[in-house]
Amino acid sequence: MHRIFGINSVSARLALGAAGIRRIWIREGRLSGRLEALLREADSLSIAIERVTVEALDKMTSVTHQGVALEAETLASRDEKWLIRQVTDQGDDVLLLVLDGVTDPRNLGACLRSAASMGVMAVVLPKDNSAPVNEAAIKTAAGGASIVPLVSVTNLARCLAGLKKAGIWIVGTLLEAEARLDETPLTGSVAIVMGSEGRGLRQNTIKQCDFLARIPMVNEALGFNVSVATGICLYEADRQRRMA
Amino acid sequence: MHRIFGINSVSARLALGAAGIRRIWIREGRLSGRLEALLREADSLSIAIERVTVEALDKMTSVTHQGVALEAETLASRDEKWLIRQVTDQGDDVLLLVLDGVTDPRNLGACLRSAASMGVMAVVLPKDNSAPVNEAAIKTAAGGASIVPLVSVTNLARCLAGLKKAGIWIVGTLLEAEARLDETPLTGSVAIVMGSEGRGLRQNTIKQCDFLARIPMVNEALGFNVSVATGICLYEADRQRRMA
Repeated sequence: MHRIFGINSVSARLALGAAGIRRIWIREGRLSGRLEALLREADSLSIAIERVTVEALDKMTSVTHQGVALEAETLASRDEKWLIRQVTDQGDDVLLLVLDGVTDPRNLGACLRSAASMGVMAVVLPKDNSAPVNEAAIKTAAGGASIVPLVSVTNLARCLAGLKKAGIWIVGTLLEAEARLDETPLTGSVAIVMGSEGRGLRQNTIKQCDFLARIPMVNEALGFNVSVATGICLYEADRQRRMA
Repeated sequence: MHRIFGINSVSARLALGAAGIRRIWIREGRLSGRLEALLREADSLSIAIERVTVEALDKMTSVTHQGVALEAETLASRDEKWLIRQVTDQGDDVLLLVLDGVTDPRNLGACLRSAASMGVMAVVLPKDNSAPVNEAAIKTAAGGASIVPLVSVTNLARCLAGLKKAGIWIVGTLLEAEARLDETPLTGSVAIVMGSEGRGLRQNTIKQCDFLARIPMVNEALGFNVSVATGICLYEADRQRRMA
C-alpha cells in the first residue's frame, strides 16, 4: 500500500482506472476547478472519497499535496518469466529500462517517474544491488511506482541474455563509449541499461550489450545524476521513435 | 567554502585549475591508477595534499568519497549587471539556464551538475523563491557548484527582459505548450526557463518567453522531476547545437 499526493500524480493514477485504488482524500471547503474535476472523476470510478482538513493532509506528508491524496496498492514486483511473456506478447516496439545498481531511493523514484511518463513497459532491477522501493522512492516517483511494473531479477546478465533471445536490442550507457546516444539506434524493441553513479555498468552487464552509447557533454568528467541521465536516454528514445 | 567528494567530481574541479581550491585529501596506502593520477595532478598544481585514513574521509560525508575529497571556495553569487556583461562579451551561442522556483536543494544541485556538464554559462535564480545552495545542493551538484556561476536576481521577469534586449531568446518549458521541445529552436543564444515542480512557470515569467515548449510524453499527467526535465532540455539544446 502506498500514498500518492498532488493533483498531477493523483490524476495520473486515476487515468489508469480504479483497480488497486483503496481511497482518495480531498480537502474540505470550496474546490478549485482541477480538484473539483478529480472529485468527479473519483466518484465516477466509485472510489471511496473522504473529505478531510488541510491539516490532516499536512500530517500525511511533507511534500506538497495540493489538497489531495490517494492510497493505492503497490504493484507487486514481477519475475523474469513474466517479463519475457510480456515482451513476447507485445512483439514490436518494446521499451524497457534496466537499472544496474541504482542504490539511492530518490534516484530510483525519479527514474520510475520518468519511465511512467515515457511509457516504459517495465523497469528491471537486480535483486541484490538496488535501492528499496521505500517511502522516499515512492514519493519521488510521484505516482510512477503504481504505473510501471518492477521486475526484480537474481542474475541481471542472464536476464539480458534472455531478453536478447526474445528479440530485444540491449543498449548500455557508458561515459567512455565511442558512439553518441543520438547516433545509436533506439527504435524497435530496446532495453536501455543505466549503470550506478559511482561505478557505471558492471563488466558482466557490458558483455551483454549490443550497443554502448554515451551522452555527449562539454565537461565530461562531471557526468549527470543517474536519474537525469535516465530521463535523457528515455527522451532520446522517444524522439527517435516519433521520427521513425 | 565547500567540499567535493569522489574521483569524477574532484577531477572535474582540478581541470578548472587551482584557483579557489584550499586543499585536497587523499586516503593513505597504495592508490589505484585514477587516485594516483589525481595526486600527481594536485601536486603539479601546487595544491596542499593531506593523506588521511579512510575513516577520516568517512566522517566528512555520507556520500561515496572513493578515497578523495577537495575543499574549495564556493563561487560567489553574481548579479544581473555581471550577467549582461558576460552575455554581451561572449556574443554568440550563449546558453543560460533559468530556474523559476526550484525549491528543493537536491533538485537544485542536480540542475547545477547538469548545467556544468553541458557548459551552461550561468544559472539564474530569483532571490526569493529558490532553494538555498546548502550542503545537500552542493553534494548533489557533485562539483557543479564550483563550476557554473549562479546569478541571483530580485525580479526575474525584469532580468529576462534585459536578456532579451541583449539578444538572448527566452524559451520557457510548459506542460501545456503546443510546440514540442525538439521542434523549438535552441541554437544561437538561448536562455532555457524551467518552472517549479508544483506550479510550473509564473505568469510574469511566461509573458517574457519568446517560445514555449513541452517535453513530449506518453503519460502527460505525470511529468518529470524538475532536475530530470532540466537535463532533457539541456541535452536537446546541445543536440541541436551540434547538428547546426
